[in-house]
Amino acid sequence: MHMTGDCLIGWQDIHHEGGFRAFDPTRCAELEPSFSSATMEDVDRACHLAAEAFVSCRLVPREQRAVFLEMIATALEDATETIVQRAMQETALPQGRLTGEMGRTTGQLRMFAAIVRSGEATDPKWDKALPDRKPMPRPELRQHKVGVGPVAVFCASNFPLAFSVAGGDTASALAAGCPVVCRAHPAHPGTAELVGRCIRKAALQCGMPEGIFSLVGGEAHEVGAWLAEHSAIQSVAFTGSCQGGTALAAIGAQRPDPIPVFAEMGSINPVFLMPEAMKKGAAQLGEAFVTSLTAGVGQFCTNPGLLVGLDGVDMDIFAKAAASALAAQNEGVMLTRGMADSYRGKVKRLMATDGVDLVALSSGNGETTRARGAFFRTTLSVFLQNRHLQDEVFGPCSLLVTCSSAEDILSLSRHLEGQLTVTFHMEAEDMALAQRLLPTIERKAGRILVNGWPTGVEVCAAMVHGGPFPATTDGRFTSVGGDAIDRFLRPVCYQNFPAELLPDDIRD
Amino acid sequence: MHMTGDCLIGWQDIHHEGGFRAFDPTRCAELEPSFSSATMEDVDRACHLAAEAFVSCRLVPREQRAVFLEMIATALEDATETIVQRAMQETALPQGRLTGEMGRTTGQLRMFAAIVRSGEATDPKWDKALPDRKPMPRPELRQHKVGVGPVAVFCASNFPLAFSVAGGDTASALAAGCPVVCRAHPAHPGTAELVGRCIRKAALQCGMPEGIFSLVGGEAHEVGAWLAEHSAIQSVAFTGSCQGGTALAAIGAQRPDPIPVFAEMGSINPVFLMPEAMKKGAAQLGEAFVTSLTAGVGQFCTNPGLLVGLDGVDMDIFAKAAASALAAQNEGVMLTRGMADSYRGKVKRLMATDGVDLVALSSGNGETTRARGAFFRTTLSVFLQNRHLQDEVFGPCSLLVTCSSAEDILSLSRHLEGQLTVTFHMEAEDMALAQRLLPTIERKAGRILVNGWPTGVEVCAAMVHGGPFPATTDGRFTSVGGDAIDRFLRPVCYQNFPAELLPDDIRD
Repeated sequence: MHMTGDCLIGWQDIHHEGGFRAFDPTRCAELEPSFSSATMEDVDRACHLAAEAFVSCRLVPREQRAVFLEMIATALEDATETIVQRAMQETALPQGRLTGEMGRTTGQLRMFAAIVRSGEATDPKWDKALPDRKPMPRPELRQHKVGVGPVAVFCASNFPLAFSVAGGDTASALAAGCPVVCRAHPAHPGTAELVGRCIRKAALQCGMPEGIFSLVGGEAHEVGAWLAEHSAIQSVAFTGSCQGGTALAAIGAQRPDPIPVFAEMGSINPVFLMPEAMKKGAAQLGEAFVTSLTAGVGQFCTNPGLLVGLDGVDMDIFAKAAASALAAQNEGVMLTRGMADSYRGKVKRLMATDGVDLVALSSGNGETTRARGAFFRTTLSVFLQNRHLQDEVFGPCSLLVTCSSAEDILSLSRHLEGQLTVTFHMEAEDMALAQRLLPTIERKAGRILVNGWPTGVEVCAAMVHGGPFPATTDGRFTSVGGDAIDRFLRPVCYQNFPAELLPDDIRD
Repeated sequence: MHMTGDCLIGWQDIHHEGGFRAFDPTRCAELEPSFSSATMEDVDRACHLAAEAFVSCRLVPREQRAVFLEMIATALEDATETIVQRAMQETALPQGRLTGEMGRTTGQLRMFAAIVRSGEATDPKWDKALPDRKPMPRPELRQHKVGVGPVAVFCASNFPLAFSVAGGDTASALAAGCPVVCRAHPAHPGTAELVGRCIRKAALQCGMPEGIFSLVGGEAHEVGAWLAEHSAIQSVAFTGSCQGGTALAAIGAQRPDPIPVFAEMGSINPVFLMPEAMKKGAAQLGEAFVTSLTAGVGQFCTNPGLLVGLDGVDMDIFAKAAASALAAQNEGVMLTRGMADSYRGKVKRLMATDGVDLVALSSGNGETTRARGAFFRTTLSVFLQNRHLQDEVFGPCSLLVTCSSAEDILSLSRHLEGQLTVTFHMEAEDMALAQRLLPTIERKAGRILVNGWPTGVEVCAAMVHGGPFPATTDGRFTSVGGDAIDRFLRPVCYQNFPAELLPDDIRD
């Protein structure tokens, strides 16, 4: 597998001088080669090819589309070693994590292949004709779902494989019959190119039309804006910051022809530590919390950034256990220098907030690309007075809010914004409190967990990785699991069609 | 059934002096009584009550919700005579049409009651725990859909019953478990109040929480903006003009917490008259077209506003037959004076467009609230040079575009905007052309019909009353048929939940 630094526009490799280099956050050094920044013309050509490919895609049999997804998975597996090595350099994520993420990525591709093959996602419907109905006969009506058109996929920094070039967004868009123009994340352009070349290889092998996939890179935000603004693009999928997601959503809404933008953004993933659960095992909970908090240097959308429980002896035990566990850990290397800078800035702001106490830090000096885990504690009244305490701190930072009564816990829950997840740690005796919390939490979270930790998102039918704003731009969809395909499908009704003209999957 | 002119805020009647009156477009005279314009405080109170009701709604058993919808239908039936009489005065629509529309309205309510009862719309999913899975066990995950929260429903002018206070939007929102704050259409405030009182009566009879339904009126656009901007409102459903729909969508997108706005807007509903179908019966098609064009004074979203076919003898026969049929008709009374003014302005603009020829007008003087049917003809090149020829002319106006070849017809199809419907009139010999058109048309229309007319929208499972922008603001949804409920549902995942805490419908 050859890495050239080019943009992949359809079957063409596009090279521009004066590009940018990836950065190795572990060594704090630039990496070879230089990567081409896509021009507006590159983006335009990729989008036009995608529009043409979308027309041809309609005639691609379902089986071919499924095989295409499977062959991407195979191509990725064949190139795993090369890809993982490059991704390690570009992201500082460890080999085990990246190998696991590759398994998740190929698993997702094969899951969507199975969904395509089953035909279930197009959800065929059929209302028979009622020729004798009075006062008017009813014509025959059939319905199925078709792809919305070319999709712009924005790669996530924190999942260089599973939420990037061949990640869940690309897999679900291709499964829906939508060509993909992928915006490589500038923090891992080499990984992006290697994965992009696997997709291209599979596309050529399966006889997919040119334009089914293109990969455009660049350091500037402009590249993404050109994509989201392009008239050929019919939907946008994004995983990243609230700022980036809302900016894209605004572009989508302000186009002459507005398009839906699904952005999976931030979340502080509140964890409610209920009294009986704390009585039973506050110390173990404190240790398990730190394991979840610091996994992947806290760089998960589902990182537990807020803890809520009653003040008292059990809470002190929890905090002490968490503090010991965190202090025993070393700092970690974040994905980019920019993220580490931002993390430090937000931790500093917490340190400077009156009434917010630092409980523990992990060891290290937390400089350049490095981040020390940070655990803070405050009270409900301080939490409610400081709106910024609900802002996501991307990285291994969490805030414990102590309450003096169950009523206070309920009050806090009503002030929460939309979340990807909310967790209850509870015992049978906490059921009454859980039942009082649930109606509020259900309105605010896409996934609610009992006695687990929010990091770790299963890829399965019942998964919801979504939630009301600001967790995402549209809480009616999920970006993980089989239903992720629904973002890129729209229904079409065929009335009184002769059999010959009906699409294959809704003929008798 | 008593009509007071009040706003219905929860269980309270709110009266303000200095209101506005409905207008009888047939007699061109104001109607009693005076209607209160909702203040910002009224809207705020209605929205807060709705937010409170949404919390209580979670505990309302499915059966009670279904019965509530059925009791609204019964209450409407009991009041049909009063409601239809008032609607006739306010809209100039004939008794037969309004009685039929009432049947459609009660039918929709009962259809959604059946959907609620069946539980199918909440789409329960279940991934069993895999405790022995390596390297990590899988927890149990269950999913169902819940209501998004309070919905603002904007009444349509052209369907005072089926797309207004107790229309499809309200029925589907209530079925989803969402309280409704309804913005009465200022052109039929009396009809709105009478229907609103039926909903309130049913809500009281069924023990629904206060705030499950409120009705706010007023002449100013502000009332709608206050609603769409209110933090308690989580979704907006609108049927009306492209201008109104895009304005609401912009409000929804620009809120601090953006919300989805489903606006069903304009469409010109192109009809392709294919060569063999024309050879077989151009004259009959011309007559049938005029019947569809002038039904309800052309005031349907699915009105056939554009005809496309080959120039030649058959087309002349079609045009002549249509011209005779239209000239034999009298002008009609439109819903409002404003609509008739706008209609006249747009017809005048067509008359003034070089290369667009007037083929026929229906008789009358077309003054005040009256509109004469208008049928124009032009060529492909003129059509492609004048972007405004794709603008919807709301009312009984249509434009025939003649092409000189099948290639020209295909070229026109590629220039079409998003549509609610596209129609093919075809015979077996036209199959090749239909098959070439279909991929483009499928990308642009929510419903495609063969050998019928687009007016007449069945309420059934396979119906799609939607389409890509500008037909709607989100082509992934429909506002007619069972799937209309999907606009107001979002998925929630429950991970490792004890049975006792799970919502009823996803317990074992």
